[in-house]
Amino acid sequence: MAFINDNFLKLPGSYLFSEIARRVEAFKASHPGVKLIRLGIGDVTRPLPPACIEAMHKAVDEMASADTFRGYGPEQGYEFLRRAIVENDYAGLGIDASEVFVSDGAKSDTGNFGDILAQANTVGVTDPIYPVYIDSNVMGGRAGTLAADGHWSDVCYLPCTADNGFAPQIPDRRLDVVYLCYPNNPMGTTLTRSQLAEWVDYALANDTLLLFDAAYEAFITEPDVPHSIYEIEGARRCAVEFRSYSKTAGFTGVRCGFTVVPKDLTVKAADGSRVALNAVWNRRQCTKFNGTSYITQRAAEAIYTPEGKAQVRATIDYYLRNASTMLSGLRAVGLEAYGGVNSPYIWLKTPAGVTSWEFFDKLLNEANVVGTPGAGFGPAGEGYLRLTAFGTYEDCLEAMDRIAKNIKK
Amino acid sequence: MAFINDNFLKLPGSYLFSEIARRVEAFKASHPGVKLIRLGIGDVTRPLPPACIEAMHKAVDEMASADTFRGYGPEQGYEFLRRAIVENDYAGLGIDASEVFVSDGAKSDTGNFGDILAQANTVGVTDPIYPVYIDSNVMGGRAGTLAADGHWSDVCYLPCTADNGFAPQIPDRRLDVVYLCYPNNPMGTTLTRSQLAEWVDYALANDTLLLFDAAYEAFITEPDVPHSIYEIEGARRCAVEFRSYSKTAGFTGVRCGFTVVPKDLTVKAADGSRVALNAVWNRRQCTKFNGTSYITQRAAEAIYTPEGKAQVRATIDYYLRNASTMLSGLRAVGLEAYGGVNSPYIWLKTPAGVTSWEFFDKLLNEANVVGTPGAGFGPAGEGYLRLTAFGTYEDCLEAMDRIAKNIKK
Repeated sequence: MAFINDNFLKLPGSYLFSEIARRVEAFKASHPGVKLIRLGIGDVTRPLPPACIEAMHKAVDEMASADTFRGYGPEQGYEFLRRAIVENDYAGLGIDASEVFVSDGAKSDTGNFGDILAQANTVGVTDPIYPVYIDSNVMGGRAGTLAADGHWSDVCYLPCTADNGFAPQIPDRRLDVVYLCYPNNPMGTTLTRSQLAEWVDYALANDTLLLFDAAYEAFITEPDVPHSIYEIEGARRCAVEFRSYSKTAGFTGVRCGFTVVPKDLTVKAADGSRVALNAVWNRRQCTKFNGTSYITQRAAEAIYTPEGKAQVRATIDYYLRNASTMLSGLRAVGLEAYGGVNSPYIWLKTPAGVTSWEFFDKLLNEANVVGTPGAGFGPAGEGYLRLTAFGTYEDCLEAMDRIAKNIKK
Repeated sequence: MAFINDNFLKLPGSYLFSEIARRVEAFKASHPGVKLIRLGIGDVTRPLPPACIEAMHKAVDEMASADTFRGYGPEQGYEFLRRAIVENDYAGLGIDASEVFVSDGAKSDTGNFGDILAQANTVGVTDPIYPVYIDSNVMGGRAGTLAADGHWSDVCYLPCTADNGFAPQIPDRRLDVVYLCYPNNPMGTTLTRSQLAEWVDYALANDTLLLFDAAYEAFITEPDVPHSIYEIEGARRCAVEFRSYSKTAGFTGVRCGFTVVPKDLTVKAADGSRVALNAVWNRRQCTKFNGTSYITQRAAEAIYTPEGKAQVRATIDYYLRNASTMLSGLRAVGLEAYGGVNSPYIWLKTPAGVTSWEFFDKLLNEANVVGTPGAGFGPAGEGYLRLTAFGTYEDCLEAMDRIAKNIKK
């Protein structure tokens, strides 16, 4: 008889967003006519850059004629895109096109990467954290059991709070795999070059694999924030990097990202020999994936044209202006707010004694603004709330106005 | 220190297509100017249906304006497509839209489905077989070790040869999971309604999960060949069905397919309770996948319009005319050829005493036609060669002409 992978049964339901939806619906039912401003979602709202639109129309037309039609592409992505990535995102960093794997997005890649790692690996994550890192490891049998406080027994949590400047402390023990996401989702915070270098040093000393999620790289504005972990000496030997066009260029509905697996990055086999991850990830992708839409890949290529770059910059700047407006507005009413400078996310400290969910309700009821309770991203997220800058500028202004006028301290 | 999933190291290299490429290159180098006809590849060559092209242009334009822009879609696929699938592909079969999961293709889904199944499941496959079924189970730790004869020690092989009419015998023991692909790749053969019903009976009696790959359903022409396993009474309780638009509508480079997981399909948990696969697959997709491109999904929806249906039919008929031409041509020179009636694949018996690779070389050298050696699809494929009908009609005619004139028996 067929058996389920019991690890899947350990996962609790996706409580966070369904509970938010439930509370929002209840509010709307009891307050008809009130306009809510949604600053909770992590989805973009600006349209695709015109360069991408033009590239997709052209690619669609190619698919209409036998002479220019494209069938199966390389599972790793087309050479034209892999080259554009290497030349633009990794100029001077020594990354080769054969180390780049184009995919349908960073969620798929961060979720699937555990496929190629042994179940016995110990895993470390920052807390709060993007839930996919944890959930995919639960599915892979690496998380142990879930305690009442929200911690998984076999996962090492690295708390990030205002007390440590949201920088996870280097573990005092050996971990096999550590997930890092910078600029961070949900906190919107970053690591400086020297902070990231400490992680690379730790990884090299402990033979730790760093899974570095740089999905928000395009939002970096400050000079001391590394855009890629490969800016750090030695990272090629210990780190995989995930990138996404979702927030960079509005590709959340178009689906494209990529993963860099350097050829000199090795991990251990059970017999003690070293195995190159590049070849194993390649085998995984060739067996369980069949490449990303050609049309999508042409759109991604267009991001790297001069027009594409300018258009992407304008959209990022639009969101960053929202973030800046929100930061000023929140601080003006005496709230502690973090992130938002190199990130579309603002991590708002709840007033003393107010929980994440209580503050969510307060914002909803008193300012009619919807955020995301920080506790939903992990135990150390308690006492915080995430706001996103992906809405319209007008909504951001109005939200700040409402918070200034209505939030009772 | 980080450890690799050692199961990946058991996989041999992808020998088949690289060896074909090597022999083809060697031939070309020694025979410059000779035009090869490639009937080996499984990729389509006809352009996308105009209805799909029009739908994609429209969807691309929607992405260009904030009012109509679409960001993250549902991980399970848009309701408009799931409804079209249910109403067209499953009319009268009692499948609900919530049982349909739209994806980036059947390769991803057949490859990833093992994620949600316990490692301890015993697996049965037809032999020959689409390699992804085996390779993904090797990665999942269910295959055991590879013997010199090409068999994996823990996999149950169900040989399909001319002797049994290419119909796998119902196993005489209990298997947990069985992969069936009909119309079959690589053989091009089918199961009749009563043959498939025997499999459903077996599955219900043994609590076996059937993973039914119907990627070539659109090529069915004969009335007694089921288009869906759900035409068989009881299949909802034992079978998952995979479908693809790759061969149906030329989507190999566009990437879209779907998987049906009925809500009353359950398997066992370790504690003996029954678990609905629909909810678990949903959780897997929501965690490790983020939906298929909106533009692609609009193209898939267009397949179900009256114009789309007519255009798809015309392309399928074009390929089926190729197959019919090839069948007649091969049989006219005394070769035994199977499939090609409900399928774009022709499964050619090699002459007595000639191996798959020897016949591959013979076709290459004497007729300048490239096929795929049957042995590459599994041990029982030895003595066969796969030809595909995805080329141009003119090439098919010329290939048959060359075979008639040049193949020395």
